[in-house]
Amino acid sequence: MLENKDQTRTPVSALGEFKLIDQLTDNFINKQPSTIKGIGDDAAVLGLEKQKMVLSTDLLIEGIHFDLSYMPLKHLGYKAVMVNLSDIYAMNAMATQVTVSIAVSNRFSLEALEELYSGIKTATDLYGIDLVGGDTSSSITGLVISVTAVGFATEEKIVYRNGAKANDLLVVSGDLGGAYLGFQVLEREKQVFEVNPNNQPDLEGYTYLIERQLKPEARKDVIKLLDDLDVKPTSMIDISDGLSSEILHLCKQSQVGCDLYENKIPLDPQVISICEEFKLDSTTVALNGGEDYELLFTISQDDYPKIKANPNLTVIGYIREKEAGCHLVTRADSKIELQARGWNALNDQE
Amino acid sequence: MLENKDQTRTPVSALGEFKLIDQLTDNFINKQPSTIKGIGDDAAVLGLEKQKMVLSTDLLIEGIHFDLSYMPLKHLGYKAVMVNLSDIYAMNAMATQVTVSIAVSNRFSLEALEELYSGIKTATDLYGIDLVGGDTSSSITGLVISVTAVGFATEEKIVYRNGAKANDLLVVSGDLGGAYLGFQVLEREKQVFEVNPNNQPDLEGYTYLIERQLKPEARKDVIKLLDDLDVKPTSMIDISDGLSSEILHLCKQSQVGCDLYENKIPLDPQVISICEEFKLDSTTVALNGGEDYELLFTISQDDYPKIKANPNLTVIGYIREKEAGCHLVTRADSKIELQARGWNALNDQE
Repeated sequence: MLENKDQTRTPVSALGEFKLIDQLTDNFINKQPSTIKGIGDDAAVLGLEKQKMVLSTDLLIEGIHFDLSYMPLKHLGYKAVMVNLSDIYAMNAMATQVTVSIAVSNRFSLEALEELYSGIKTATDLYGIDLVGGDTSSSITGLVISVTAVGFATEEKIVYRNGAKANDLLVVSGDLGGAYLGFQVLEREKQVFEVNPNNQPDLEGYTYLIERQLKPEARKDVIKLLDDLDVKPTSMIDISDGLSSEILHLCKQSQVGCDLYENKIPLDPQVISICEEFKLDSTTVALNGGEDYELLFTISQDDYPKIKANPNLTVIGYIREKEAGCHLVTRADSKIELQARGWNALNDQE
Repeated sequence: MLENKDQTRTPVSALGEFKLIDQLTDNFINKQPSTIKGIGDDAAVLGLEKQKMVLSTDLLIEGIHFDLSYMPLKHLGYKAVMVNLSDIYAMNAMATQVTVSIAVSNRFSLEALEELYSGIKTATDLYGIDLVGGDTSSSITGLVISVTAVGFATEEKIVYRNGAKANDLLVVSGDLGGAYLGFQVLEREKQVFEVNPNNQPDLEGYTYLIERQLKPEARKDVIKLLDDLDVKPTSMIDISDGLSSEILHLCKQSQVGCDLYENKIPLDPQVISICEEFKLDSTTVALNGGEDYELLFTISQDDYPKIKANPNLTVIGYIREKEAGCHLVTRADSKIELQARGWNALNDQE
């Protein structure tokens, strides 16, 4: 995972707004040919010839989307970028630029903000993204991060949520439920720490789950893979709120139904063992956990031979006619109606 | 000004996140040919042939950028859009799309958010802008609004901050200082109200100033005017932080100096009379007040005949060589070095 450091403390007021953003963005270098003008004017200027631009924006609020008591600022910067890139990849487009605006209260030092931006820089470097704008301002209480991501694709390449057809296969990348369980582990450690601050957390055995929560990766590699395999999904969405909720989005917008097979849902062995420890049902966690940032998409059955051997992709069900409804086919072969419940449902159940 | 209404109260939790954004954005209709896909997918899709895209983003935080005790939500929605469009026009581009994300605490009802979005709708309708994305989420304390604006222009048309040359004329649209004085009037009324809630505010004589603060207009008309007059500025910026600060930005980025003439700074008669009432120096207010959202630009002297008769534009100074520095030439014909002081300086002086 990313390293954390905390040594000196310079109040942000020592710099002023304009110098602060200069200082934070000083070491970002533009890499994309479509970046004509980045930071430093009223607006960024982006160019492209025959391609279409894809634009997405997200707001991350302290205490709602992240908890700084266990989320290091560097990871937070990294994750804030990932969350937005994930939306661009979910359009089957290549992400190229981001803008990042932050609002901070005076409890954040310059060094803390530099830590946040070092995570943003790591993300933009690894994914080949240019930071082209954004500003810094004050906030009364917590930290607010607003990221806008831009990507490009030819019009034929772009995949919407509304193209799924009956008999298409429902496919997911990676595995599910890990990010939610990582959150549960971190929450438990936080409570232990509050009772006994001298207790050293033992997080061995949870590393994969914690990394899924603190340092998710957007699936740029899957978009490249689909391109290499010459597969264009008929519909696609990224999994930010949980598999169940995202499947229902695809089905609603495509006006279709689906059968999702419980025994096909990809789970990491750590997810299975920690679900036992936490007395949680792993299917419920995968369906409603959220924050996995995997890609969920549908493909024509004709494309099945191209993807079937790939360890990154799992066929988890079939698209049906709208009238058939959206169902989970359980291991016991019974059909349950799919519902979007999200984290609250999980918490109610505990 | 925009009308305010407050009748019923539906808790936002009655809808849920997805239905909320549907409900709030239901009556927005796309108008721009460059909007290929608006709200409803992972990202918006925007298209253009030979033009370049201009992108700007801003974060508005309750208690920092606005005070809901005198800022009606409808006006706030309108202003949030204007602030961002202003950045696009300041690139000499035409604004075409916005995304709006909000984070709200549970003290906001659905009706309150609909009020906010009705202001956003009025702004997008009047300026011919498409709302193409954004989301809603929770916040622990106040309201957070994040707006990203997009515009298009041919590469030759785009005006940066760094093109001013020695001997160019320094020009400003409209008049200055009004928004800051409107803020002062509203702050005074708020204090009166806190002492005596039954006191009816008498805001006659202040209407122009209050409108400048609560309902600023981005100068789309000035961009059209410059196009009609066949004038391409050599550099341009919008006035959000105060004339002084913006002039220094242009000069720094263009590596030039300037002489700004105090007696040329355009002031509305209401600004002059209310400055007397508040015992403020009108030049200081115009230089440091901010939030006027006028355009500041430089033009070649060859273009002077094209703009000289226009009541919307005022020549306020000359660009000099860098070595000459940046100065205010006072009415008494003495030269004072220009400084970016902003609102804090004004408050210190009171």
